[in-house]
Amino acid sequence: MWHEHSVQTRKQTDFIEITHLAAEAVRQSGLQEGVCFVYVPHTTAGVTINEDADPDVIADFGRALAEMVPRIPFRHAEGNSPAHILASLVGSSVAVPVEGGRLLLGTWQGIYLCEFDGPRRRRVLIGCLGTKA
Amino acid sequence: MWHEHSVQTRKQTDFIEITHLAAEAVRQSGLQEGVCFVYVPHTTAGVTINEDADPDVIADFGRALAEMVPRIPFRHAEGNSPAHILASLVGSSVAVPVEGGRLLLGTWQGIYLCEFDGPRRRRVLIGCLGTKA
Amino acid sequence: MWHEHSVQTRKQTDFIEITHLAAEAVRQSGLQEGVCFVYVPHTTAGVTINEDADPDVIADFGRALAEMVPRIPFRHAEGNSPAHILASLVGSSVAVPVEGGRLLLGTWQGIYLCEFDGPRRRRVLIGCLGTKA
Repeated sequence: MWHEHSVQTRKQTDFIEITHLAAEAVRQSGLQEGVCFVYVPHTTAGVTINEDADPDVIADFGRALAEMVPRIPFRHAEGNSPAHILASLVGSSVAVPVEGGRLLLGTWQGIYLCEFDGPRRRRVLIGCLGTKA
Repeated sequence: MWHEHSVQTRKQTDFIEITHLAAEAVRQSGLQEGVCFVYVPHTTAGVTINEDADPDVIADFGRALAEMVPRIPFRHAEGNSPAHILASLVGSSVAVPVEGGRLLLGTWQGIYLCEFDGPRRRRVLIGCLGTKA
Repeated sequence: MWHEHSVQTRKQTDFIEITHLAAEAVRQSGLQEGVCFVYVPHTTAGVTINEDADPDVIADFGRALAEMVPRIPFRHAEGNSPAHILASLVGSSVAVPVEGGRLLLGTWQGIYLCEFDGPRRRRVLIGCLGTKA
């Protein structure tokens, strides 16, 4: 049921649109109605849904998140506590409705892998639950 | 499987309780045990679960979120980047357990449509996965 | 389908790893492939996935969250608005992929009950959807 994809991020904070991976997973699964889950098995990356028409929207999101992490002394020795914090705030999965064999995303919605400690190669797991044709 | 509801918000930042829509969706679906998904197909609105006993709780949530968005210059020309940021932080869906044909919400839990760029008419998709009677 | 667990938290802000409860739920359910849902039916607690190797990571997360809540006058008379705010930001559920009868968590991922208004005894609901053997 789960298919793994590999996604290369390009910067420390980066947002890579992966809507096409979810759309293709739904198509290949033969799912007619149900839910498509996108899951990121990492602790310094996450996944979210936001506007994919104007790229400034997701860029503004990234700059706002960086500002929101407080400047306090962190104990985690790797120095990437801000990335772990943002991963949990954004979340490790999204659930997208499927009907008629396609994702029921809103007009402006796209699915983004959220990188907070890149650049790295990241794994994305996509799986579909529901009724097949 | 998915049923769409239309919800009118009343203010720029607004929280509309939609627990009854999810409860009714479960009832109409005939689902006995499984998960009820509530999904918002927008990028400046979201959905969350919080206390519905004292309305001050969700109002405090809204005022805190508004304060948490940093005052930095945003590039998105529409001027509603804070709404996009909050939509991703709150999230576009919730998953609520169902057993015995009813939502297993906690005593104080209610489901709220979160409006961050209103007032507008918003769409809410509700669908149930699991075992019917 | 849903099994309830009781978890005692020890401090006002606390993070209790509950990965083993989800792993055991998958094993007992006989689920081969699907999704394991972990749900917290409270409004001042939540659930998240983050690193469980270095305990400093989740401790840094807790201290950052406490700093992120703005110091504004809240109206909710119980005085625990910050806990309600953090519960919604962290979220009330996680969805974890299952394949081959086991959780497909990443190498460093663990599931944490997030307490923001403890110490208390908390309920955790765990349920599995998908295909059994």
